[in-house]
Amino acid sequence: MNVQNASSSQFEEIFGASGSRPGFQEWAAALQEHIEAVLSKLLPSADVAPRRLHEAMRYAVLGGGKRVRPLLAFAASEVVGAPAERAAIVGAAVELIHAYSLVHDDLPCMDDDVLRRGKPTCHVQFDEATALLVGDALQSLAFDLLSGQTLAPAPQTQLEMVRLLASAAGSRGMAGGQSIDLESIGEVLSLPELEFMHIHKTGALIRASVLLGARCGAALDAEALARLDRFAKYIGLAFQVVDDVLDAESNTATLGKTAGKDADRNKPTYVQLLGISRARELALEMRATAIEALAPFGPRAARLEELADFIVMRRF
Amino acid sequence: MNVQNASSSQFEEIFGASGSRPGFQEWAAALQEHIEAVLSKLLPSADVAPRRLHEAMRYAVLGGGKRVRPLLAFAASEVVGAPAERAAIVGAAVELIHAYSLVHDDLPCMDDDVLRRGKPTCHVQFDEATALLVGDALQSLAFDLLSGQTLAPAPQTQLEMVRLLASAAGSRGMAGGQSIDLESIGEVLSLPELEFMHIHKTGALIRASVLLGARCGAALDAEALARLDRFAKYIGLAFQVVDDVLDAESNTATLGKTAGKDADRNKPTYVQLLGISRARELALEMRATAIEALAPFGPRAARLEELADFIVMRRF
Repeated sequence: MNVQNASSSQFEEIFGASGSRPGFQEWAAALQEHIEAVLSKLLPSADVAPRRLHEAMRYAVLGGGKRVRPLLAFAASEVVGAPAERAAIVGAAVELIHAYSLVHDDLPCMDDDVLRRGKPTCHVQFDEATALLVGDALQSLAFDLLSGQTLAPAPQTQLEMVRLLASAAGSRGMAGGQSIDLESIGEVLSLPELEFMHIHKTGALIRASVLLGARCGAALDAEALARLDRFAKYIGLAFQVVDDVLDAESNTATLGKTAGKDADRNKPTYVQLLGISRARELALEMRATAIEALAPFGPRAARLEELADFIVMRRF
Repeated sequence: MNVQNASSSQFEEIFGASGSRPGFQEWAAALQEHIEAVLSKLLPSADVAPRRLHEAMRYAVLGGGKRVRPLLAFAASEVVGAPAERAAIVGAAVELIHAYSLVHDDLPCMDDDVLRRGKPTCHVQFDEATALLVGDALQSLAFDLLSGQTLAPAPQTQLEMVRLLASAAGSRGMAGGQSIDLESIGEVLSLPELEFMHIHKTGALIRASVLLGARCGAALDAEALARLDRFAKYIGLAFQVVDDVLDAESNTATLGKTAGKDADRNKPTYVQLLGISRARELALEMRATAIEALAPFGPRAARLEELADFIVMRRF
């Protein structure tokens, strides 16, 4: 696992000296800094009209977040030895979709949250109408990025990548998951129903992160793509289980957002259905299933495997 | 002007017998019906989960609207003899962006409108959270459509079309225009400032309609594209001037939406700056500039010319 794949030389140039593979923490920290710089460059300057909107877009995206989705895109791009520049744009596009969803979720008509990543939410810092437009414009910008420069070996592949993100974001992906979430407040869901919700709400975008990263480089066959998709599906689910556990356990200060809110609002969670202990076990089982799917990729998938651990082991 | 271009044979098959060119009203009515059917087919069924979201998306898009943007896309596609199927998808994509913007504009934190196209607005008929998600999901669906099937002679051209729509919808296009509009409530704008706002708020999407339609077929040179863009720019501005005049003149019943709202809210308008009489003259001047730009295209641009008249002559 300590062998960097030769075709990932561009990663080594950026994130580690050739021959010495940086540890996960070092790699992730360097990439988080890199993605912050990339996002800052890609977002419109607050000096350009409409200034208030651009200022609010930058406020909503920059200066926080674990950047799990861009990290997944980078790690998946390592599997196919894709150029780091492509993974950065793809990762940024997915992160913009994620950021827009947070801004809209926090609005009073949705979760009505006032704190996000330890800062006032966008509509608190600016106003509701601006926050609405911030989300709308961030979504457009994601598709602008994904179509504005070469990101794949062939334009047709890149068109398929646009479609992949559009489907993952839309009514049969993330936005649909939000809608199911709204409908399920106060309802008692079964485990399959809860899983169905999360596969849409957070899972679709996590799968898109991995698949978009993987499509930036040399083409993979259908079986390899299906394996990456399986990895991403289980990591996405584990991510949500861990979130539920953290929400049940944490206090507001360490989480950087209002804690215990799921139980307060009678939202169905894995903890509610299974208890904390069994929910933890489930996250570990999902991690194992995810990592198993990576087996044929060997050391090229080392960062994906490390990310699986990062996602599941965050706090326990 | 009574000669249908030979390369538009697919249009003739659908919208008129070969050799007899239907009048504008007939053409527009047939196309409006066609675009309604296309949108109905492309929108997710209300039987598919999440049902409430899909039902609300269909409510927001179907059963009304002049479909000016799809008509422009169809008319522009005639200039290059593009297949009608492509113009339909492109027109539907632009219409979805337009429909999403109306749903979000109507929300309480924006214009707080309760009536649209003679029906309760989406958040009144459903709820605010659903209306928010409807707009978000309609935007995703537009990019899904634009990337999901062949719409241009080359995939690279189609990628450029995706980017064109993303830019037109985003912070330097429609969403940006909305933001400038918000900032300008209660402000006294100069004519150039008002124009700047409308070039973004409504103009960007109208230009995208024309340019996307034109890129579905044989490639045009830069000068021809610039002429179509000039046409679209002035038609877009004229559209807004006419809207301001109609808003000042009409009553709620005939307009199908709450009339006189601009003046009520102290929003800057052309009528406020110029008076109704001069605003009408300005619309006619803009129409003339737009039509002049079409001269080299000859009869292939006849529908675009007719649409210019339709937009400007709607009510006076």
